[in-house]
Amino acid sequence: MKVPDNLVKAILKARSFLIVIHINPDGDALGSALALARVLKKHMGREVTLLNNDPIPQVYRFLPGWEDFSHTLPQTTPDVLILLDCGEVERTGFKNLPGKLKLVVDHHLTKQNFGDIKWGISDASSTGEMVFNLIHALGAPLDKDTALCLYTAIVTDTGGFRYSSTSPSSFRAAAELLEAGVSPWNVTENIYESISSERMALMGKALNGLKRNGEVAVISVTDSMYKETGTSAEDTENFANLARSIKGVEVAVFLRQIGPDSFKVSMRSKGRVNVAAIAEAMGGGGHHNAAGGLMKGRLNEVEKKVTTMVKDALGSRKPE
Amino acid sequence: MKVPDNLVKAILKARSFLIVIHINPDGDALGSALALARVLKKHMGREVTLLNNDPIPQVYRFLPGWEDFSHTLPQTTPDVLILLDCGEVERTGFKNLPGKLKLVVDHHLTKQNFGDIKWGISDASSTGEMVFNLIHALGAPLDKDTALCLYTAIVTDTGGFRYSSTSPSSFRAAAELLEAGVSPWNVTENIYESISSERMALMGKALNGLKRNGEVAVISVTDSMYKETGTSAEDTENFANLARSIKGVEVAVFLRQIGPDSFKVSMRSKGRVNVAAIAEAMGGGGHHNAAGGLMKGRLNEVEKKVTTMVKDALGSRKPE
Repeated sequence: MKVPDNLVKAILKARSFLIVIHINPDGDALGSALALARVLKKHMGREVTLLNNDPIPQVYRFLPGWEDFSHTLPQTTPDVLILLDCGEVERTGFKNLPGKLKLVVDHHLTKQNFGDIKWGISDASSTGEMVFNLIHALGAPLDKDTALCLYTAIVTDTGGFRYSSTSPSSFRAAAELLEAGVSPWNVTENIYESISSERMALMGKALNGLKRNGEVAVISVTDSMYKETGTSAEDTENFANLARSIKGVEVAVFLRQIGPDSFKVSMRSKGRVNVAAIAEAMGGGGHHNAAGGLMKGRLNEVEKKVTTMVKDALGSRKPE
Repeated sequence: MKVPDNLVKAILKARSFLIVIHINPDGDALGSALALARVLKKHMGREVTLLNNDPIPQVYRFLPGWEDFSHTLPQTTPDVLILLDCGEVERTGFKNLPGKLKLVVDHHLTKQNFGDIKWGISDASSTGEMVFNLIHALGAPLDKDTALCLYTAIVTDTGGFRYSSTSPSSFRAAAELLEAGVSPWNVTENIYESISSERMALMGKALNGLKRNGEVAVISVTDSMYKETGTSAEDTENFANLARSIKGVEVAVFLRQIGPDSFKVSMRSKGRVNVAAIAEAMGGGGHHNAAGGLMKGRLNEVEKKVTTMVKDALGSRKPE
């Protein structure tokens, strides 16, 4: 992975930095930002402000330096603004981000053309892998805490080295990060083995009500399930993926109650059906393999209706 | 990872091979054996017989060549017998395995001293990683199917690159295997996203009955749950690990009904309690972090009894 020379030069030249990540920050955004900030501050003697617009999720509070994020715009204008893990100011939740020079480091496809220097590699596994290479290009050392942040970034954005974006260079980066002192089990425990009992019980109820209909699987969470288990909407993360992991399921649907007769619909496709089209038909949207919208009605009705919609889409797709 | 010269020479000299793996074969045993057999046959023109004593689990039937395993001892004596992923003949389920020269390639600690040449690296992530290095030492190429078998071996034995046995060299091997044509998502789909709806429903029922008591979590599966969901004991794989992944749980207990008032007890510790000692007290055994035994009584009684035993062990451990 080649890091652009002008990006490296711009960073080496600057004294003060503002690093900003997107709303609803994930492991990749947080890990990348914390790693880059640490290297700039500790090893290169620069001034760095970390900025984001949301509380740091509990699960990532093991990352060294997570408390360093501020949530309000700085008063002064830094030499360099770095937009990390997103390419659009709108995604940060702020307006008019200050910076004499504006840089973007991101692995997402974006339409906007923000930034004086934009480094975007849409097939990189993660922004973490890009920052790993950037740190090398800056000639800075990789200490254990920096490595932990980058490893977490790569692990979370590749789904634990599972997604197709995982490349040989992702694995080689992981090897180096282990050599810098990262313990894979420690990261696993923090990320994947820290589920609350309440969430586990909710998962149990949801799976217990699983409705399988050929290539469609529907799981649902209702207000009464939240009540019985002492959980809330944030405990349903990844429930749609759970249904997708069933053998023979082509489209997984997750229904989450948001009102007396109202459900948020999340759909996951294994690739052969475009769920964005189904989502649009219910006034929602998304991508080919992950989309969602809203539906009104009783749970039973909504389950049936959405199953029919997905079945129709499955039926109308061309044979391979 | 240095492959012993005498092992490489012995393999290069031989014309016929018998490769044997352990009972209840896992991804590491199967993937390693299939990879080594393929290379010896396809690229080195040798005669190879693959032998094991159990049906090949459904989940591994995507591995190229899985049908090639025979389940009965061959009539002739091969030049070389290779015991793979185990160091003891007893673990294979056979007696008197034939072979003019007997080799062992294994990453488990074993007490027995079987074999003319024994290559054991107990801190290797997997036998797959050892075979990966062996294939290089033999000077054989790594085709796509061989790479798929080795990748599956490494992924399954490291719990998806999560266990502490995952090393920089495991990641570098994974990088090379991707370059040989492996798709990480394809392996993920086959291994981790092929859960039956029945097993998913059983998991739901088990999680729904989760009993949390401080640092102890107990989940149970009863005969009536099997009946309601159309499942059997083999659908409970990893249920103990599920309970372990709860935040704050130090010891996870999984109870599986095996008779009217009889339960198989599986315990998983996060490291601070030696569950083998608890297992021994109920006439069972195991390791520090994974052990089990049997208990008699009604489900409620057994749940209470085992919780008390674990609580006592937690209480008596020395403060850190």
